[in-house]
Amino acid sequence: MNDSSTIKISVFQMEAEFLRILLKLGFQEEKAKTCASVFTNNSIEGVSSHGVNRFPRFVNYILNDLIDIDAEPERIHSAGAIEQWDGKSGPGPLNAIKCTERAMELAQTSGIGCVALANTNHWMRGGTYGWQAARAGFVFIGWTNTIGNMPTWGAVDNKLGNNPLVIAVPFGNEAIVLDMAMSQYSYGQMENKTIEGSMLDFPGGYNSSNELSYDPAEILESKRPLPIGYWKGAGLSLLLDILSAILSGGLSCSQISQKQDEISVSQVFIAFDIHKLGNFPAIQHTISEIISDYKNSVPVDEKTNIRYPGERIIEIRTKNLQEGILVNASVWNEILAF
Amino acid sequence: MNDSSTIKISVFQMEAEFLRILLKLGFQEEKAKTCASVFTNNSIEGVSSHGVNRFPRFVNYILNDLIDIDAEPERIHSAGAIEQWDGKSGPGPLNAIKCTERAMELAQTSGIGCVALANTNHWMRGGTYGWQAARAGFVFIGWTNTIGNMPTWGAVDNKLGNNPLVIAVPFGNEAIVLDMAMSQYSYGQMENKTIEGSMLDFPGGYNSSNELSYDPAEILESKRPLPIGYWKGAGLSLLLDILSAILSGGLSCSQISQKQDEISVSQVFIAFDIHKLGNFPAIQHTISEIISDYKNSVPVDEKTNIRYPGERIIEIRTKNLQEGILVNASVWNEILAF
Repeated sequence: MNDSSTIKISVFQMEAEFLRILLKLGFQEEKAKTCASVFTNNSIEGVSSHGVNRFPRFVNYILNDLIDIDAEPERIHSAGAIEQWDGKSGPGPLNAIKCTERAMELAQTSGIGCVALANTNHWMRGGTYGWQAARAGFVFIGWTNTIGNMPTWGAVDNKLGNNPLVIAVPFGNEAIVLDMAMSQYSYGQMENKTIEGSMLDFPGGYNSSNELSYDPAEILESKRPLPIGYWKGAGLSLLLDILSAILSGGLSCSQISQKQDEISVSQVFIAFDIHKLGNFPAIQHTISEIISDYKNSVPVDEKTNIRYPGERIIEIRTKNLQEGILVNASVWNEILAF
Repeated sequence: MNDSSTIKISVFQMEAEFLRILLKLGFQEEKAKTCASVFTNNSIEGVSSHGVNRFPRFVNYILNDLIDIDAEPERIHSAGAIEQWDGKSGPGPLNAIKCTERAMELAQTSGIGCVALANTNHWMRGGTYGWQAARAGFVFIGWTNTIGNMPTWGAVDNKLGNNPLVIAVPFGNEAIVLDMAMSQYSYGQMENKTIEGSMLDFPGGYNSSNELSYDPAEILESKRPLPIGYWKGAGLSLLLDILSAILSGGLSCSQISQKQDEISVSQVFIAFDIHKLGNFPAIQHTISEIISDYKNSVPVDEKTNIRYPGERIIEIRTKNLQEGILVNASVWNEILAF
């Protein structure tokens, strides 16, 4: 059953397949196209964990009525440059795209704009919305809460989410996009390493004997992934969760964790219209100078390449667009069968 | 010279001494009182590294004309809910208090408010401004850039700052305040551990042989402190620096590092007026529920106490207010001699 062979799927074939399935599920055409594009693009940019590999789970959530494909997010409260929206259990990527757009509109009026979104679903890859805003010339800060999947510092049970945080800035025709969960490694990464039979490069969590471990299988068993920076990442995760819940009026990690599935998450989208803060070419020049100095760092050895967040995505995208996307055959067959 | 003995100084004596010196340096009375209070309060709350221990350096910066004690921060650009201010090389704590106040005023108008501050000085303890905003009933996000003091991932030289990030929310009569630098340990902590002759609990950096090290002396020598979460904290530090510089129009870490001293840093202050986002008691109830669930985590052992960011400060404050503040005798003598 668990076929580990891989096949190359062209970008066009992948997107067409996603579109076919979403239309079959009853999505309106524009929404189907947007969703298909998000899942395809995440795969093109090397984040198949929240692209093609996640697509079957997205479909199953829809089939199990956990995602309302016709829902339209609705503004429930406006307080000037910050608004609260209800995601109405709609598809996470559609809600997130809409709220990123709306945060940019608010920023065009007020310099800064914030949309806090309650009752939405998994946004898949947070970086999607960072790229969306940065490509449009905005600075973006956004985050989501999640179901409990990480212990706090000194604890063994999962009271915290890994609450990915995204920060993005325009950079030439591309963007600098930080997209980081609060756990050192994702469950997906640890599962892949376990299948490969390899160890993690750095301790990824505690094992069941309360020792820091490089062994992903041990950590998957103990369910104690490590927060980045130990107590620091745990603290940051807690604060991001509190902000998600109180700014949006939506559910906290604790409340999401009481549900059977990860639904009704809360998200925050902040955009800055930097065109209002000075001459845009001058701002771009400042960013270029920072990156240029950063990339002039002295590497530890000749093999090491100093990269900024999001830099590798440009290469991966080019390669995948040309050569197609490597997909696990069993995942692809599951998709074809929908 | 390096007297390691300690003495207890009462809060009143400490604040009076700071006030005496600041007035002698020519501070206006109100500004002297505010600065004395910030340095005293940081010491009361257990952050002497940015309180009493840092006071001599603050005085020396003034004596060397690196801080303009009469400077008034000035708004140089307004774009609605975000404003750019020029700190005019004034005392960092005074500028930061003013910009926190201003961010709250903007939030009272627009729900969210942001002040980006260029050309300021070290704000000492970032948590000060988190407590300021949260005590006034606001949610706060703020950060500062710094001089280069941490290598990026894969590098040996210090192109990144440790760029402390503060997130705060009101919590009853107190606050939940996360105040974290992007390095796993501060130089101050590693210096203290070196003096004590003890090792770090977790690797704090790379030694000169490019190995992760628990030995603070080795890391102080290599000057390679570790970012929290390895590549993740390095990326977050870079993005916080870019945002500080482009939102404020001020200097980046790279530009600050070209100076002899850490001056002209750039900071961002964001406040959310959560009174505008719903019923305040209901919001407080949500926070209480999150914290209550968090504190119900199952600890790894009986000795472990699960705490939220800022929780310990309340105990430390009570103790220090009652018993006085433990100060290194040589530091106190240096202060008395000003």
